[in-house]
Amino acid sequence: MVMLAKSVDEWLLRRILKLIGPAPIQLIFRNGEGISPQGVPPVATMMIPDRRTLWGLVLDPEVRFGEAYSEGRIYVDGDLVRLLESIYEAAADAPAYGSLYTRLASKWMDFRQSNSVRASRHNIHHHYDLGNDFYKLWLDRQLVYTCAYFPTPEATLEEAQVAKLDYVCRKLRLQPGETVIEAGCGWGALSLHMARHYGVSVKAYNISREQIAYARARAQQEGLSHQVEFVEDDYRNVTGKFDVFVSVGMLEHIGIANYHGLGQIIHRLIGDSGRGFLHFIGRNYPTPLSRWIRKRIFPGACPPSLQQAAEIFEPSNFSILDVENLRMHYAKTLEHWLDRFERSRDQVSAMYDPSFVRAWRLYLAGSIAAFRGGTLQLFQILFAGPRCEPVFWTRAPLYTKQSSIEAAKWTAATS
Amino acid sequence: MVMLAKSVDEWLLRRILKLIGPAPIQLIFRNGEGISPQGVPPVATMMIPDRRTLWGLVLDPEVRFGEAYSEGRIYVDGDLVRLLESIYEAAADAPAYGSLYTRLASKWMDFRQSNSVRASRHNIHHHYDLGNDFYKLWLDRQLVYTCAYFPTPEATLEEAQVAKLDYVCRKLRLQPGETVIEAGCGWGALSLHMARHYGVSVKAYNISREQIAYARARAQQEGLSHQVEFVEDDYRNVTGKFDVFVSVGMLEHIGIANYHGLGQIIHRLIGDSGRGFLHFIGRNYPTPLSRWIRKRIFPGACPPSLQQAAEIFEPSNFSILDVENLRMHYAKTLEHWLDRFERSRDQVSAMYDPSFVRAWRLYLAGSIAAFRGGTLQLFQILFAGPRCEPVFWTRAPLYTKQSSIEAAKWTAATS
Repeated sequence: MVMLAKSVDEWLLRRILKLIGPAPIQLIFRNGEGISPQGVPPVATMMIPDRRTLWGLVLDPEVRFGEAYSEGRIYVDGDLVRLLESIYEAAADAPAYGSLYTRLASKWMDFRQSNSVRASRHNIHHHYDLGNDFYKLWLDRQLVYTCAYFPTPEATLEEAQVAKLDYVCRKLRLQPGETVIEAGCGWGALSLHMARHYGVSVKAYNISREQIAYARARAQQEGLSHQVEFVEDDYRNVTGKFDVFVSVGMLEHIGIANYHGLGQIIHRLIGDSGRGFLHFIGRNYPTPLSRWIRKRIFPGACPPSLQQAAEIFEPSNFSILDVENLRMHYAKTLEHWLDRFERSRDQVSAMYDPSFVRAWRLYLAGSIAAFRGGTLQLFQILFAGPRCEPVFWTRAPLYTKQSSIEAAKWTAATS
Repeated sequence: MVMLAKSVDEWLLRRILKLIGPAPIQLIFRNGEGISPQGVPPVATMMIPDRRTLWGLVLDPEVRFGEAYSEGRIYVDGDLVRLLESIYEAAADAPAYGSLYTRLASKWMDFRQSNSVRASRHNIHHHYDLGNDFYKLWLDRQLVYTCAYFPTPEATLEEAQVAKLDYVCRKLRLQPGETVIEAGCGWGALSLHMARHYGVSVKAYNISREQIAYARARAQQEGLSHQVEFVEDDYRNVTGKFDVFVSVGMLEHIGIANYHGLGQIIHRLIGDSGRGFLHFIGRNYPTPLSRWIRKRIFPGACPPSLQQAAEIFEPSNFSILDVENLRMHYAKTLEHWLDRFERSRDQVSAMYDPSFVRAWRLYLAGSIAAFRGGTLQLFQILFAGPRCEPVFWTRAPLYTKQSSIEAAKWTAATS
């Protein structure tokens, strides 16, 4: 380790080292001075060329790292994902990472970024209305912007997104003629898949104007408009009676305080005999998202722990039938997205300024690191009302070709 | 409906009808007077020959029904399980079923039936030390006294219990040479299965003296004593370091207040890189067990909701990987047990007095009704520490023959 002269710089660097703990990262400061990890090769080099940035990192790393990286005041040479993974891992071991300031600042952000009907519109517009052309550059053909399901790790992103859509339908064991309500339908891929392949009627809600317009056009194009209705409205305004409730990637956006209300809404929609499915980013225990992510990427978002999510089910006497954690599948999905994003860098750069490009690279890379390391989880929950007919005898039909045959055999045996 | 003379009896019957709501049951009172359901054939006839019993049912149905049935002051003609199912279903619709008296009496029972180390010994002795000869009459050959896993509904009880033991091992993906700690091991079947078929070393705890003695003798007999150690002690006294924690059917007995402590114990045993498995009777939402069941069958027991169970995992940063609800498998398991119990009636009657036989019939039949109707759930939860290598890529290998081949392929593909 090169020893720096006793100075403010050295003190600042030591503070930063304390924050990131034993992460195998090389830090280079102005004049080329720096610190290398001992004994192991660094996974990446981080260059911080000015003292102002150093001060920022020491005072409020959660926000200032992202800001400085986006503004080009921090450079990373090497594997950005591995660098972030190392920092998360080291931070998990560092005591007292959440200072009083951090907690107060987080509360203040909670207060400013509400999940009211009006604020939600703003929050969702901020992210999902960036322009369909932007998302087309790096998502799959159907624009599925949630965790895919890779039957094998070698599956392509296109295959894995179709496999996910189908996995959701099979977990719900959709039957022709049933009615489905989807809350937070993105660009409509799941609704259209359900209608086309399972013969159900779908009513799908979303408050992103661009997504709804795209989904409607697709339904029209594919001759599915009579079976799928896309509504631009808040999930709190959904009315009607349905056999099935489904929501993929919305729970993270509605705020923990609204879970009890969501449960009541679901119960109003599917009653005691319906079934439902939630797919969402979650946590091992309650923790807010990083303030930088909430400031720049997902305003108002908060992934829940399962204890928090239980507030949706328990007051309505819903039975949880199946929970699956697919976090490694989200890491892989994000690897595909980041790879495509990097390969579209020229087009993205022509659409947005450089700080946007860097912010999105950091968000995608940081998400890979969080899912790989287990800071974030991905939960799929299948549930049913107390008077719902049992959905499966065993889960085996989900993983074999003769699903319908098995199901028929079971129905015959138990009736 | 036969109208009774205006009298106390009539008032009492009307109160009872209010409690059981529209259940299709014929009630017959002394002198043969009674009430039949309107429009539908009754699933069973319940005879209540004296006014004292009627008063008891009105004042405290939760306890007095079980007491009167056991003491032979209520007779049931017809299908006992269907009768109980109808009552549970009707009761779920009846408003204000839980009166102030019921809630206070439940709290008082909570207070008297603690889950301290000493009280737990008494609670477990009350049920599990009734004599191995009694349980041999109606359990499977290996004395597995928890929910079985029926690959198809037609599987025999013997097959389904072996399938369950193996399912637990495969969910945990046990590897030869690993160390396993089992808390609450019953008569030892799971520990012995793990050791014999998966080449692991097991340390297994239980506070039932008769069960531990039986398990030790079996390990000796089968030449597995070097691989499985059975310890007669409380789970709170377990020490050591292990790769895997497993507990099947213990959570219901330890009390919700001890879940946080159990989580800390599990974390001490398997650290951040271990994995674990819990199998337990649960609820859709927090509800105490019926006071009759706690008084006569399972003192100190309380099946948790998933929100309550989460207290075990979240403070230790454990990731929930997989939750499966097998309640219909418990209904089927109990059907086998009740059937065997009835076929062994003569032997059981020779061992215990008639009120014991009736109480156990009611407990088994009531449990079938509760699992069928969804008053009780059966959860299997697979979890892992934050530094545990991902256990599965997908769940498919659990349901195919080439589990190990798939697993090897995946390891090769991701390493």
